[in-house]
Amino acid sequence: MQNKRLEDQVKFIVEIDRLKRIFRQNVVIGTTEQENDAEHSWHMAVMAILLSEYASEEINILRVLKMILIHDLVEIHAGDTFCYDEKGNIDKFEREQKSANQLFYLLPSDQAEEIMDLWHEFEAMHTPESQFAASLDRLQPLLLNYNTNGHTWKKPGVTSEKVLKRNSVLENPVPQLWELAKEIIEDSINKGYLKK
Amino acid sequence: MQNKRLEDQVKFIVEIDRLKRIFRQNVVIGTTEQENDAEHSWHMAVMAILLSEYASEEINILRVLKMILIHDLVEIHAGDTFCYDEKGNIDKFEREQKSANQLFYLLPSDQAEEIMDLWHEFEAMHTPESQFAASLDRLQPLLLNYNTNGHTWKKPGVTSEKVLKRNSVLENPVPQLWELAKEIIEDSINKGYLKK
Repeated sequence: MQNKRLEDQVKFIVEIDRLKRIFRQNVVIGTTEQENDAEHSWHMAVMAILLSEYASEEINILRVLKMILIHDLVEIHAGDTFCYDEKGNIDKFEREQKSANQLFYLLPSDQAEEIMDLWHEFEAMHTPESQFAASLDRLQPLLLNYNTNGHTWKKPGVTSEKVLKRNSVLENPVPQLWELAKEIIEDSINKGYLKK
Repeated sequence: MQNKRLEDQVKFIVEIDRLKRIFRQNVVIGTTEQENDAEHSWHMAVMAILLSEYASEEINILRVLKMILIHDLVEIHAGDTFCYDEKGNIDKFEREQKSANQLFYLLPSDQAEEIMDLWHEFEAMHTPESQFAASLDRLQPLLLNYNTNGHTWKKPGVTSEKVLKRNSVLENPVPQLWELAKEIIEDSINKGYLKK
């Protein structure tokens, strides 16, 4: 290939195919197979398109979509860290930052920096866009767990208080979706999917 | 749930989880497992972000991303039709339109119509956005096949002429990516991945 820039972009595109084999804690509805990060990112992106009307502040939906599509790439080297695994979360950011440095700089530096900035913005949750994206990162697995009899919630150490706390991220960015999340959690307790 | 609009949106979001179990012809790199439509859509969407600079006409990247994220939803009821299956392609659009009617109208009608319009735009390939999206719909499996020793190209009836013709969609919308595709196809013939 004569174009070094395109060559680097293609290397990155081929490398991130690996996201399809980074498995998450929840399963795909109607199966016993774990969802992977590529599927999760796609699902969140469609949700962003459909649910943007619930954002309490004006959001740039293009930036939200970019952020969602790349938010889990760092797990290619760092792996998926279960959100209720307190020990695994201690060095999560450090492991993921190392992965980001290794992965994103396969790209031409201007694009590597754009992706790095988007990922940092997502992690920091200080902008309306990242708060909206982070809300969907909670709501998407909540919907999957609710529709798989609470699959992930059967794991050791998960309680309704912890699930509620994790989802409270939704309260300000998407108040109506926060009401929905609370309803789902309450119904999950009633149905025995989730321990009180 | 008190909000009928949100209830319908959530029903749709849960229903489309099924896209994760619509399997395609190619396999994920380094595995013998078929890629699914959700993974493929995610991969194409990231490619759109990274490769938009190669579009020969100005494109609205937000519309491209929306189109890519929803372009295969119709396969939830219609299934994946192998692009080199001449018989399967005869009634493909009819089957997919039926699937679209059934699936998209789970949504509130304004959103159902938006998704339907985006899907029709993608299929018609008359706009710069849909031509760019369709190009990535060719290039993404080309990259996967090239990196899996021509997995799909081993199937009956596939020849280098047919692969070249299918990828010629790239010629006008993304001339530099068309050059890349031709290089990959030529190299694939040389490496024995693809029959001349």
